[in-house]
Amino acid sequence: MSNKKKIYKPTPISGFPEWLPQERKAEQQWFDHIRRVFESYGFCNIETPSVETLDAINAKGGDGGADVDKEVYVLERLHKDDNDKEARLALHFDQTVPLARYTAQHFNDLVFPFKRYQMQRVWRGERPQSGRFREFYQCDIDVINVDNLPLHFDAEMPAIIWEILSSLPGMEDENIKIRISNRKILMGLLSALEVENTTDITRIVDKAEKISKEQFENLLAEHGLSQDAQTKIQNLIACTDIKSLKGENELMQEGIDELCFVMDQLSHLPEGAAVADLSIVRGLDYYTGTVYETVFVDDPGYGSICSGGRYDDLAGHYINKHLPGVGISIGFSRLFERIRTQNKLPKTSISPAHVLVVLPNEDARAEMMSVAQTLREKGMNVETFHSPSKLKRQLAYAEKKGIPYVWFPPFEDGSPHEVKNMETGEQTEAVAKDWKPQS
Amino acid sequence: MSNKKKIYKPTPISGFPEWLPQERKAEQQWFDHIRRVFESYGFCNIETPSVETLDAINAKGGDGGADVDKEVYVLERLHKDDNDKEARLALHFDQTVPLARYTAQHFNDLVFPFKRYQMQRVWRGERPQSGRFREFYQCDIDVINVDNLPLHFDAEMPAIIWEILSSLPGMEDENIKIRISNRKILMGLLSALEVENTTDITRIVDKAEKISKEQFENLLAEHGLSQDAQTKIQNLIACTDIKSLKGENELMQEGIDELCFVMDQLSHLPEGAAVADLSIVRGLDYYTGTVYETVFVDDPGYGSICSGGRYDDLAGHYINKHLPGVGISIGFSRLFERIRTQNKLPKTSISPAHVLVVLPNEDARAEMMSVAQTLREKGMNVETFHSPSKLKRQLAYAEKKGIPYVWFPPFEDGSPHEVKNMETGEQTEAVAKDWKPQS
Repeated sequence: MSNKKKIYKPTPISGFPEWLPQERKAEQQWFDHIRRVFESYGFCNIETPSVETLDAINAKGGDGGADVDKEVYVLERLHKDDNDKEARLALHFDQTVPLARYTAQHFNDLVFPFKRYQMQRVWRGERPQSGRFREFYQCDIDVINVDNLPLHFDAEMPAIIWEILSSLPGMEDENIKIRISNRKILMGLLSALEVENTTDITRIVDKAEKISKEQFENLLAEHGLSQDAQTKIQNLIACTDIKSLKGENELMQEGIDELCFVMDQLSHLPEGAAVADLSIVRGLDYYTGTVYETVFVDDPGYGSICSGGRYDDLAGHYINKHLPGVGISIGFSRLFERIRTQNKLPKTSISPAHVLVVLPNEDARAEMMSVAQTLREKGMNVETFHSPSKLKRQLAYAEKKGIPYVWFPPFEDGSPHEVKNMETGEQTEAVAKDWKPQS
Repeated sequence: MSNKKKIYKPTPISGFPEWLPQERKAEQQWFDHIRRVFESYGFCNIETPSVETLDAINAKGGDGGADVDKEVYVLERLHKDDNDKEARLALHFDQTVPLARYTAQHFNDLVFPFKRYQMQRVWRGERPQSGRFREFYQCDIDVINVDNLPLHFDAEMPAIIWEILSSLPGMEDENIKIRISNRKILMGLLSALEVENTTDITRIVDKAEKISKEQFENLLAEHGLSQDAQTKIQNLIACTDIKSLKGENELMQEGIDELCFVMDQLSHLPEGAAVADLSIVRGLDYYTGTVYETVFVDDPGYGSICSGGRYDDLAGHYINKHLPGVGISIGFSRLFERIRTQNKLPKTSISPAHVLVVLPNEDARAEMMSVAQTLREKGMNVETFHSPSKLKRQLAYAEKKGIPYVWFPPFEDGSPHEVKNMETGEQTEAVAKDWKPQS
């Protein structure tokens, strides 16, 4: 052993973000805000384990959208023995697969409609070079019911999401739009047009925004669609007045009626907050009715920050019940990272303390502790300074940690306590049991 | 494809617990309570990724106590390619190893003393048969400083822990005790006794409570300790009046003085809440001064629910700085599980809603939504009923979800709104913007 220590300088692991305390404080504010709104609509919280069996992970389910890379992380005990017969475990890549398993497993203990929110980390096995998150938070709400699920809930989702996103701290200047469609409309039309390869056509429609009109028409033509069919699809996805739409068959009309109901229920939102937009399809075959995505109006290329929709059967492979659901998921970490890197997060202090009680000399320690405890009992967060250093140093500590008030116990018996407002510099006499911060 | 669905009944994965909504609500209350107390002492929050590099996990650090099984889970991408050159990643097994890495990595961006709390899941690669948790929450606080760390913080830890544990919902009837020692005392004595194999002797002292006096003496004798040395060790660990202790050398006296300081600072706690107890040593060579453990007075065999201590150098292998620290960790999930299985958790409702607004008929939908929004704006959690079902069914839903108030919009224009207290059955006229729940 040499005396010289060997130093392994730690470096960040690609795709696994972590924040400084003041950033984490803003992140906590976001979680608190989202939780408050979810609960204000009566959603209960659940958490599921970080892992599912690999079989469950691979089962049908989850937002199988083309843009979702389902590469997962499997777990292995470092010193695993050969006679480990356990099913392989993998970290969940979304919260829908776990929800399906949870709902089936606890079916008899749940009250339906089951309204739950879930805010957990999920993992995707991205290559380190990709620059994408490999561990991130999602905030999901879903409503699951037995046999049938009223459209009421399809309309509740965007109202909740609007309330959250329009008032997240740091998002005040962002202009966002929730785009809503109903897949029955396009599916109905394709059926009326006797299109068979609906998955291919849906995939092309999904791409329509990113390609030219000509490319779009060529792709449809390549897939055997007539000029008339092409025009009808183009007219549909460009339609801005859904109330004027006429269904070409029952399915299409059902989709139109459902979408009209949902939009009607959202009429209390500001103009442009939630819009019917028949060009969105979201994923390939998972959603069966209402679909949502949410974009920055001024930066649509950033993609959706909050998506979801209605699915016909959540957990059919787990339980012999028909469990339709509707849900939506905020891509929390991706959104937070955007606002963070744009320096728009609210400025927060490093310490959660409202007050630092200083220690003028060792004899005042008991008095310092007593003041601090009195203020805590009144609901304040209070730090006590750890040693009788020079007062200048103690004040500098409050300054650096962003603590707004400094409390001075008496330097000698009989003198009054004083408290200093660090912002204004004002210093006044105070009594702990009566004092309150200004604000 | 057959028409008959194949059903895979989901089963719990051993060691990965999950809770029903009402249990999770109690768990959230616990986290909220712990966070509130941590913050009331000025601790800031951080989170670290779920993974560290396997090298970091294997580096010295963390509570290397004999009872800690460090078997870890390593991650592997399911479809990994052979040219993945990345360092192996493993799920963290505690929050101390990540804290060390975090502190070194962000050293220049942190304000010292760095007081942080962390409440995350950790993972241990236990065998499925063991019945032990493989994924669980820990709630840690630590204070790290550069070069030296005042004893002030050693005394702050038990005060915080007492405040938390004595008022966790469901823990009201539990009688707990924080046992505190200082390893310098035993180390000093062993040095004065010229004992060389201090690790062996420490390990024996750690076991003293679980074996007979005779077994204890035999073990010490086997390790070459004289009758006189055995007696001195026995007297030491049985000592209940630390103020009467005299150090046999400088190190031992330092330990006694430090322990006396810590106990003095805790004199405001109820009798028996925090006790000096020289029989505890906690781990083998990680802690260097103050050590803590917390037991149920009426069930000491359950082991420690909250442990920690002072360490001399947190991150020496990462950074060329001397970073002493002191910390303590609540074994959250183990404690929660005990109170849960003893049916002592507070009874909580399934829904967070205070009010269910019913839907008397489809025409009243707009009125229902408007009442709900008014109540939400006043800070209440409100569910709206999804369809104009029979009133009896809507009331049954409120009952099952434990929603304490049901709001009735008028069945016809001009009639008043009414609200029913589900507990008392009392039903009165009400106006949304003025109404408040009784409490």
